Amino acid sequence: MTSSFHPPQRTLMGPGPSDVNPRILEAMSRPTIGHLDPLFVQMMDEMKELLQYAFQTQNELTIPVSAPGSAGMETCFVNLVEPGDTVIVCQNGVFGGRMKENVERCGATAVMVEDEWGRACDPQKLEDALKAHPEATTVAFVHAETSTGATTDVKTMCKIAHHHDCLAIVDAVTSLGGTELRVDEWGVDAIYSGTQKCLSCTPGLSPVSFSAAAVERIRNRKTRVQSWFLDLNLVMGYWGSGTKRAYHHTAPINALYALHEALVLLKNEGLEHAWARHASHHRALKAGLEALGLRFVVPEAERLPQLNAVTIPDGVDDAAVRGLLLNDYNLEIGAGLGVMAGKVWRIGLMGYACRKDNVLKCVSALDEVLNRVGASGTQGRAMAATLAAYGD
Amino acid sequence: MTSSFHPPQRTLMGPGPSDVNPRILEAMSRPTIGHLDPLFVQMMDEMKELLQYAFQTQNELTIPVSAPGSAGMETCFVNLVEPGDTVIVCQNGVFGGRMKENVERCGATAVMVEDEWGRACDPQKLEDALKAHPEATTVAFVHAETSTGATTDVKTMCKIAHHHDCLAIVDAVTSLGGTELRVDEWGVDAIYSGTQKCLSCTPGLSPVSFSAAAVERIRNRKTRVQSWFLDLNLVMGYWGSGTKRAYHHTAPINALYALHEALVLLKNEGLEHAWARHASHHRALKAGLEALGLRFVVPEAERLPQLNAVTIPDGVDDAAVRGLLLNDYNLEIGAGLGVMAGKVWRIGLMGYACRKDNVLKCVSALDEVLNRVGASGTQGRAMAATLAAYGD
Repeated sequence: MTSSFHPPQRTLMGPGPSDVNPRILEAMSRPTIGHLDPLFVQMMDEMKELLQYAFQTQNELTIPVSAPGSAGMETCFVNLVEPGDTVIVCQNGVFGGRMKENVERCGATAVMVEDEWGRACDPQKLEDALKAHPEATTVAFVHAETSTGATTDVKTMCKIAHHHDCLAIVDAVTSLGGTELRVDEWGVDAIYSGTQKCLSCTPGLSPVSFSAAAVERIRNRKTRVQSWFLDLNLVMGYWGSGTKRAYHHTAPINALYALHEALVLLKNEGLEHAWARHASHHRALKAGLEALGLRFVVPEAERLPQLNAVTIPDGVDDAAVRGLLLNDYNLEIGAGLGVMAGKVWRIGLMGYACRKDNVLKCVSALDEVLNRVGASGTQGRAMAATLAAYGD
Repeated sequence: MTSSFHPPQRTLMGPGPSDVNPRILEAMSRPTIGHLDPLFVQMMDEMKELLQYAFQTQNELTIPVSAPGSAGMETCFVNLVEPGDTVIVCQNGVFGGRMKENVERCGATAVMVEDEWGRACDPQKLEDALKAHPEATTVAFVHAETSTGATTDVKTMCKIAHHHDCLAIVDAVTSLGGTELRVDEWGVDAIYSGTQKCLSCTPGLSPVSFSAAAVERIRNRKTRVQSWFLDLNLVMGYWGSGTKRAYHHTAPINALYALHEALVLLKNEGLEHAWARHASHHRALKAGLEALGLRFVVPEAERLPQLNAVTIPDGVDDAAVRGLLLNDYNLEIGAGLGVMAGKVWRIGLMGYACRKDNVLKCVSALDEVLNRVGASGTQGRAMAATLAAYGD
């Protein structure tokens, strides 16, 4: 007989997926109902309101795309960009590079504005690029770079984009629910996120939101959206308002139960409380990591609390350390991505994973494992620093 | 406090999603682990083998796309079709029309071969179209039309396609696991399915398989695949063989647990047994539906056991009947789609939903409800006919 798969219980402190709240896993296993069932349609309406709260927006078109964050990114580009367009892409990590791929596959030109990996995007460089490219229609950048842990000033960037009559596409995969994000107040036109980061949900869906200006552009395209599956003109018929919904594709029912539950948890905690929680555990983790002699990649003012990229000490074997953490502690931390592969670890503190017991487990396990692979141990100093940061 | 969503326990006998086996729901709620975790990678390898069994293929590139069946369809077209190509699309229902949309959005020309809705695709018409269009590179058609319940002779159609040096793309969304399907023996080059039909899994993933000739075409494209998310040249880096997997997008971990469990259940039942089970319950349901005076849309020889499209009796209110079945019996049957909206019901017998208790429930509930809305009741004759078909 072929066997069922029984995964171990890991502690997920990488760049995502993060630990999933057991309440969300339970919600996911509730009975499947039809995607046009009136009770399901009611749930979809609640979901839109909960997503509006999470994104801090009144945007009518605020829905989950039925595929992971990468498909959310593609949804933004294929709907807002047409062949021949010019898009300014500000890149400060891996995901800006993926934006460029998206732009080019839409038959448009990507003008790249490069920033150092591990730093925020520089608004002045965006301003300069827009002056040099008055033909640009769209600006795109990442709010929270998952590859480095750097955050960018969304409000200032969007203001500059609008000043040059461009729409702004923002990647919020790692920020939603973890750090301050205000779609309406900051003037974001199109934003996408993922479920498996600070929402602590299972991976597989991508919440997106589009401003009225973005929807107008989508409705008035000269060419058809190149993706049938991601064409918002069609998707809106299913996720639109009223009780009459047009079948487009079969919605991932149980994954949507899970996201609904994750958003209920976020609403009940309160966004500001969730942001403060991420900041507070980050301070404790930072004290511990620094006591271990690990240096942060990103300067403090541009650093995300939920993604801690630290440099691997000289002579320490990256894969060996991660393997020992996984096998002996069931603890997953992330490897470096792109040019940072082998040079950094990415330690996530996202959503349900962002708790004191995880911070303490991570610091003590790293201390022991680093000592085992030949780096000097701290004889309890790292843990003491962590506890002190908690005020204990 | 915002509340959790608690769906009712429905009996799903529409065109999908179908009833999900509780074992699959339980598997879906197992702890989330990382998408590069060595244990997860092992599970992926098992998944590929289980999918190869379900599709009856040795194709190396046999994987689940991380999005619903519509995205599986798009995966086939965007990878195999290039701008300027000619694709012969045989249409005998809604989903052939969606194939046309896909072809055109790839910048290619769709030559439509129209067949009557409710009938199989006619191989002779395909032969004629290929003679008239020697420039064609690809043929596409639906094995099991979910909108009508008609099945098409895949083996003959693929043979004709190959004779004209075309690759054949086949939609198996509703057939996989429910009726005979032999990818290698029948010469299919690219095939996509869904998880929420005869696999009885939750919706959200799309199993696909590509022949060596299809993979060769993908590797030798002149243009880039227009979708980054669905570009198999990139996806293969994650789903490929060996222990080293390149991150592409975050896999929908828990949805994959569910699909793995669904495939284990299918493997342990045995494909031929599953096909026979669908045929046997279909015979009983058919006896009951015919005793109720409902006529099948599709001639018997071209009829799918798992999707029973029957015409709505004159003067009977479509929506009222479906509403009563849903509210009073928690029983979902499907409405007509496209030109068949309001004219037919689609009664699914898929996977876990394909069982005797469901057949009996459906026949007795329909008998009572039809009587309530003014059609003549059968005074137990429909149930007697159903039981007789079971040999009871």
